Amino acid sequence: MKSGIPKYKSISKEIIQKIESGEFQPGDKVPSENELIDMYEVSNTTARKSLLEVELEGWAKRIKGKGTFVLNRSEDRHITRVLGPFHAVKESFNENLIREGFTPRNVVLEKTILDDGISSNINNHHYIIKGPVLKIHRLRYADDILLKDEVRYISLTLCPKINMHDLDNRSLISMYENIYDLQLKNVERTLGNTIIYPLDQKYYFENEIPMAVFVLDGAIFCNDGEIVEMEQSYYRGDKYKFSIVAKPQFSINKN
Amino acid sequence: MKSGIPKYKSISKEIIQKIESGEFQPGDKVPSENELIDMYEVSNTTARKSLLEVELEGWAKRIKGKGTFVLNRSEDRHITRVLGPFHAVKESFNENLIREGFTPRNVVLEKTILDDGISSNINNHHYIIKGPVLKIHRLRYADDILLKDEVRYISLTLCPKINMHDLDNRSLISMYENIYDLQLKNVERTLGNTIIYPLDQKYYFENEIPMAVFVLDGAIFCNDGEIVEMEQSYYRGDKYKFSIVAKPQFSINKN
Repeated sequence: MKSGIPKYKSISKEIIQKIESGEFQPGDKVPSENELIDMYEVSNTTARKSLLEVELEGWAKRIKGKGTFVLNRSEDRHITRVLGPFHAVKESFNENLIREGFTPRNVVLEKTILDDGISSNINNHHYIIKGPVLKIHRLRYADDILLKDEVRYISLTLCPKINMHDLDNRSLISMYENIYDLQLKNVERTLGNTIIYPLDQKYYFENEIPMAVFVLDGAIFCNDGEIVEMEQSYYRGDKYKFSIVAKPQFSINKN
Repeated sequence: MKSGIPKYKSISKEIIQKIESGEFQPGDKVPSENELIDMYEVSNTTARKSLLEVELEGWAKRIKGKGTFVLNRSEDRHITRVLGPFHAVKESFNENLIREGFTPRNVVLEKTILDDGISSNINNHHYIIKGPVLKIHRLRYADDILLKDEVRYISLTLCPKINMHDLDNRSLISMYENIYDLQLKNVERTLGNTIIYPLDQKYYFENEIPMAVFVLDGAIFCNDGEIVEMEQSYYRGDKYKFSIVAKPQFSINKN
């Protein structure tokens, strides 16, 4: 079974094929050195060389202490985000981008404490967070492209002094759970759709032609029914796609 | 505790308040006569009068043998559809609209058997259905408004002669399960976003100003990994919203 191709090359080729076919998606972790050693019964030198090869060819990037992640290579490829389930909702906006090879950047336009609280209409329901509420309005960039114009309202009753923390590099949901020990019950999100025209001063995208945008409204509920966060955000329609995977319930029993 | 208002009026008022507040959504079933009898300890005459009152005031509509359903009242209110979970994916497009008080109508633009099968790119994956495949291209209206321009490709290998059935008034997914006895594994859907400009001959919406549309790509997989259906559809962005509700896993154990 000897061929002219060195073993590490044939492994890296297999990994690259899986990236090209979409089996490994941007942001996905490719198998680690140890996993390659087990899978292919090769030495750690060979496994390391395989991963290096994938990285040198520009398909993936090693993040120290975390693993090797598939890059989002093509210029016009959309960034796909899973709308549910819960563990996807919890992921940090910035960390997702870093794993896909982008450089994230935030511009905080506003960070205000509203004493009166805030009300909003999500999915035809009327929701209220009692004051005081932290309003944080951020522009979220990847490689100097404004991807998302995001406003969040966070209950300061449930999360006292959360404005003292670094809010830019962590998932807020994990902060609610870990710092404030809140039991989160569910997340409701509604995705609408609109057009932003050039020169509309209400928006920050500075698009030169009309642009479709996703309008996301969301609320995060605690176990006692109180709302810890509401969100109103705009995602560029030319850069984003949202996906869901739905499985029948009890599918395991059916097998 | 006697008040001037007859009992049936106070019950109908309560139901209407729940519709107004969003607790009961368009398409939701309001409590039945028997449920009202139990809830309020009233006679069946009172319960019946309460439901009739809600209907007469234009908030709901009785569908014979099915129940009384909340109408989608306001002109510019969006139609909201849940993107997952699976049971929501299975709902019939037409039945959903009927429950909300619309009159659905389908125009079949094309119904073709493709011998060669079809391939598509969903969520950066490349998917294939082997031929023969039934292509069905339908315009789906509610009250003479074109809501959805829908193309589905259905495997005729997995669903022989499905083109003989009435495809317009049933959920196709329930046909795959019930008529062809297929075990469905999961549904993948990706939601993109684009602008349709007036006079673009590729589309049927006939909008007079630029319109944002959702672009839905989907695939339904059987347990053996084969694809039974692929979909490519456009939903009017000014009429539709998509929603998800995500819950943490193991939330029951945490209580």
